[in-house]
Amino acid sequence: MQNQCRVVIENVLPQVNSGEVKIKRIIGEVVHVTGDVIADGHDVIAAVVLYKHERERKWREVRMQPTENDEWNASFSVGKQGNYHFKIEGWVDYSLNWQYGIQRKIESNQNVSSELLEGVDYCKSIYVKATATEKKYLKYLQEVFNSKGFYNEAITEAISEKLHNLFLKYPEKYLVNSSNVLPIYVDRLKARFSTWYEFFPRSASQQEGVHGTFKDCEKLLPRVADMGFDTLYFPPIHPIGEVNRKGKNNTTNALRDDVGSCWGIGSKEGGHKTIHPKLGTVKDFKSLIDKAKGLGIEIAMDYALQAAPDHPWVKEYPQWFKWRPDGTVQYAENPPKKYQDILPVYFESSDYINLWDECLDILFYWIKCGVKIFRVDNPHTKPFYFWNWIINSVKDKYPDVLFLAEAFTRPKIMQQLAKQGFTQSYSYFTWRNTKHEFINYVEELTKTSQREYMRPNFWPNTPDINPLNLQGANESKYLQQYILAATLSSNVGIYGPVFEHMISDSLPGKEEYLNSEKFQICKYDWSKKNKITAIISLLNKIRKEHEALQQTNNIKFCTLENDNLLAYYKWNDAKTDELLIIVNLDQHNTQQGMVQLPLNELAIPHGHPVKVNDLITGSTFSWDKEWNFIELHSSLPFHIFTINK
Amino acid sequence: MQNQCRVVIENVLPQVNSGEVKIKRIIGEVVHVTGDVIADGHDVIAAVVLYKHERERKWREVRMQPTENDEWNASFSVGKQGNYHFKIEGWVDYSLNWQYGIQRKIESNQNVSSELLEGVDYCKSIYVKATATEKKYLKYLQEVFNSKGFYNEAITEAISEKLHNLFLKYPEKYLVNSSNVLPIYVDRLKARFSTWYEFFPRSASQQEGVHGTFKDCEKLLPRVADMGFDTLYFPPIHPIGEVNRKGKNNTTNALRDDVGSCWGIGSKEGGHKTIHPKLGTVKDFKSLIDKAKGLGIEIAMDYALQAAPDHPWVKEYPQWFKWRPDGTVQYAENPPKKYQDILPVYFESSDYINLWDECLDILFYWIKCGVKIFRVDNPHTKPFYFWNWIINSVKDKYPDVLFLAEAFTRPKIMQQLAKQGFTQSYSYFTWRNTKHEFINYVEELTKTSQREYMRPNFWPNTPDINPLNLQGANESKYLQQYILAATLSSNVGIYGPVFEHMISDSLPGKEEYLNSEKFQICKYDWSKKNKITAIISLLNKIRKEHEALQQTNNIKFCTLENDNLLAYYKWNDAKTDELLIIVNLDQHNTQQGMVQLPLNELAIPHGHPVKVNDLITGSTFSWDKEWNFIELHSSLPFHIFTINK
Repeated sequence: MQNQCRVVIENVLPQVNSGEVKIKRIIGEVVHVTGDVIADGHDVIAAVVLYKHERERKWREVRMQPTENDEWNASFSVGKQGNYHFKIEGWVDYSLNWQYGIQRKIESNQNVSSELLEGVDYCKSIYVKATATEKKYLKYLQEVFNSKGFYNEAITEAISEKLHNLFLKYPEKYLVNSSNVLPIYVDRLKARFSTWYEFFPRSASQQEGVHGTFKDCEKLLPRVADMGFDTLYFPPIHPIGEVNRKGKNNTTNALRDDVGSCWGIGSKEGGHKTIHPKLGTVKDFKSLIDKAKGLGIEIAMDYALQAAPDHPWVKEYPQWFKWRPDGTVQYAENPPKKYQDILPVYFESSDYINLWDECLDILFYWIKCGVKIFRVDNPHTKPFYFWNWIINSVKDKYPDVLFLAEAFTRPKIMQQLAKQGFTQSYSYFTWRNTKHEFINYVEELTKTSQREYMRPNFWPNTPDINPLNLQGANESKYLQQYILAATLSSNVGIYGPVFEHMISDSLPGKEEYLNSEKFQICKYDWSKKNKITAIISLLNKIRKEHEALQQTNNIKFCTLENDNLLAYYKWNDAKTDELLIIVNLDQHNTQQGMVQLPLNELAIPHGHPVKVNDLITGSTFSWDKEWNFIELHSSLPFHIFTINK
Repeated sequence: MQNQCRVVIENVLPQVNSGEVKIKRIIGEVVHVTGDVIADGHDVIAAVVLYKHERERKWREVRMQPTENDEWNASFSVGKQGNYHFKIEGWVDYSLNWQYGIQRKIESNQNVSSELLEGVDYCKSIYVKATATEKKYLKYLQEVFNSKGFYNEAITEAISEKLHNLFLKYPEKYLVNSSNVLPIYVDRLKARFSTWYEFFPRSASQQEGVHGTFKDCEKLLPRVADMGFDTLYFPPIHPIGEVNRKGKNNTTNALRDDVGSCWGIGSKEGGHKTIHPKLGTVKDFKSLIDKAKGLGIEIAMDYALQAAPDHPWVKEYPQWFKWRPDGTVQYAENPPKKYQDILPVYFESSDYINLWDECLDILFYWIKCGVKIFRVDNPHTKPFYFWNWIINSVKDKYPDVLFLAEAFTRPKIMQQLAKQGFTQSYSYFTWRNTKHEFINYVEELTKTSQREYMRPNFWPNTPDINPLNLQGANESKYLQQYILAATLSSNVGIYGPVFEHMISDSLPGKEEYLNSEKFQICKYDWSKKNKITAIISLLNKIRKEHEALQQTNNIKFCTLENDNLLAYYKWNDAKTDELLIIVNLDQHNTQQGMVQLPLNELAIPHGHPVKVNDLITGSTFSWDKEWNFIELHSSLPFHIFTINK
């Protein structure tokens, strides 16, 4: 038999997949909870949001308010890293209902003697919870409600604010109903706001043909810091397999001094917990991490769960790989393609518990060395539930560890990885080109439920992707790509030296770099500075100074009737920082148009003047109309205006 | 530790409230299931829908097919009344994956000897399930896959359709994952398609001032049947309270011979299981039910859970009512209003189990008398979960019993009652007037998730509602209201005699009838026929002959650039019955306009001629254009065209 609850609670938001998926927030963010709370009949109902951090025993409580169409809402702020939970409770509030009813009756001049007697019970029931002063008041109420001689006092007190507040303070939750408990994961700020730079440590040397070391990397740290990057990501730093090693340009027969792909992890020198001997020692690595930290930079490691054929695991734990009936090991393949330098881990292994534990232990090992950010290679080729388990296992112990999912695949696969717990996700930004595409994509990320669980990271390029739009592009296009990435998304990254130096030679007809650094050491002039480095540095500085750029979801595209000009309004939650950004998408020509100010969102009355100040050029304009003229030359193809009302 | 499943299943539809709410179907309807089914990596996956009726032990299985964006779908038909359940299962299909891979490799001229050896295992694993003939074939396959001498035969067989079909027939569900089990309730056709007529049995007499009886009602049955109604609904037929009885026009002091409101149920003569002595006996009632049945009419009873102050329950079960501290009983009230002729049932009673059981027993009592349809009075003033329990309890024993929820309140309350199990719901149709309002409202009912659980019943009027749009309206307006109700919704009803005779005198400024039949006996000339009765009869006949009008969800509004003309296309699932309906919403003037044929939905190429035949006038038009001229006079303000291609 069903229970007697009279309140029904539905459509609780934010929630994803009926609460199976944690929504994501960062420390200090506000969670706006809404839900439909209804009951039969006309009685007064009440609802609260209960929430708590995983290390708290008691629920905190915040009262919900009805808005319209039986929707109720309340907000709370999440102050600590880790798991939070929340739920809605609702009940028919008989005390408030009594007060509401007696007030209506008094207003229509009915005698309420009988109702006053009922009031005695409501006073009694909260008596035990009340303070001494309140108890006195409640005693007094019971007396006047009970005795006919004090009718006027009684009705004054019955509908008093004072009694109302006591009923609110000490709700009698009779036949209370509750929504499901819904999960939130709270990260540190970096999860939402990060600026990544990628280079290969083995290319860090200033000398031609010499294998770079962590010591060389240390020398590059001030440069990375000066440019305003806070996260330095290295491709794998482990020993590289010698069996079936790849040569330059992904050739299958490596020459004697070819260094191989650093994603072909493991050799007789060690596996995932070992550092490539030519890069240095663990001590060198820790020293690098410390030096970086001193400059405000975190080192992000690559976490690539695959093995070269000579990885120590293959002999030690053969059961973690798939063996074929002819006794050979299963190489990675996507038929008809085969990748003979890489063995995939066999997740169907019956020994999977030890395998998973070892995968976790790798993370723990590097976390203890000081690494708190992992860029996960090809997570979409490993089981989703494995990621759920390993990310939760890490965060249980180290809630400040962050994971970036390197998946460039079908939309629902990428979304699923985010749902399983990845902190950030590579995105399709790299292949969005037109105004229409940018608007559609960013609105999909920020206006659908994806906003709750998927934090995109916008990369104009990576060692794997030499995108068509940058092949042979001019300086203007590079500037555009960085300004778009760095202001449309609060998480941004570049495969640095190649981007800064506009290197874009490709394998014919492919989005792959010619002489890709994946298979060889490259030599860069790390001392070189140019307009691109200057603008990147300036943009990164602006990002640090403007909260509006430190989150992705607060964005509204503005009307601007020129398909080559993209305009958007960004703001911080408190609306103390408001920006208007306009980008010229045409790398060759000056573009002009009229942009519409979002007056509603800016809370500016028509005709009220605003001052906009371009953070790039320092120019200031005074606008007193809704529509304003914009002209952008391709040599400096954007405005970032602060809006001063 | 999480499991090793590689497949994730999400967004399974149809489902409502994460499967807490049953979706509704009728016997023979098809359930189209869709869901996102994904796995990591590139392996071939498979998915099925499993479904079964509550009385079946084994799941039936239907294979799903991928469409686009990782969505899969399958359909099944529900053949029996009662509860069904379904779920999706998905797995990486290693056999199919092997076949897919070996085919790609053979196509690119790789040697697949090693792969053929793997094939032996896949043949072995399905061997036990195979028929004798299949076993022979599988043995043969193992031989050729195993021996180098038959390479050509082996690769031909490996990629053969024959083997493929065996893999499909005997899937190896290794590490299978499953969605939640989702519920469906399957009703008989009447749940979806019903035509209601309401009158008060006490007004059934042909003699002025004489209380009608069930015998009088029997005489009216042929008339109701001739007009094409299949459901005859009576307001409560129980003894009416004498204490605080209401007089004519809802006055509080009844005169000696006032009959009272039949919703004030119970007197010394009995309660909810008793028949008002002036109407007749239980035997008379059963005879009426039988006679009606013979004419294709079901009698629908009113189920109103409230008591007059002299209802036998009040003395026998005082604990089922709320008693106030001053010893008086709690009347129904909505402060400051009081309803002293009615006591609400006290659902918070600690004796609620006996109360609920008695409420259920009332239903069982009348069901045993032959009643299978209940119109439930004010369900929104009784707890939602009570309805869930009582409807399920009835349907467990009598799956063919139907419940119509008489709730005219806020949208989410009405939706909730449908979610808790009501078969049909009164709707806002009564207050929709403009073209825009009709389109919006019908699209809300048929294009949102409401289509899955809420079956509206469109009533132009009820004894409680004398709508403004009918007060003083002309014949054209009455015709409009019935054609709209009867073709926009497959469930329709009228408070008959008043509607047919265009009686619409109202209490001043209210949507209530003057001299309301709720409080007195009315005298009608039951022999009278007019244009309204003729058109209603014709429309009801058309509804019976056209499957397109026997469901509500298959509707598409057509463009017609005149706000006074509403056009819509209706079809049955098989698309063997297609109608185009056009209604003139202007009760005074002829209206003209061009209607756009929905060529896509009709699968008619541009320029292909169609014949449309008006079922009302018999006129036939030949149209060979997309846009066609329509003119409707207010005297016959609609077309119902069949479309013949």
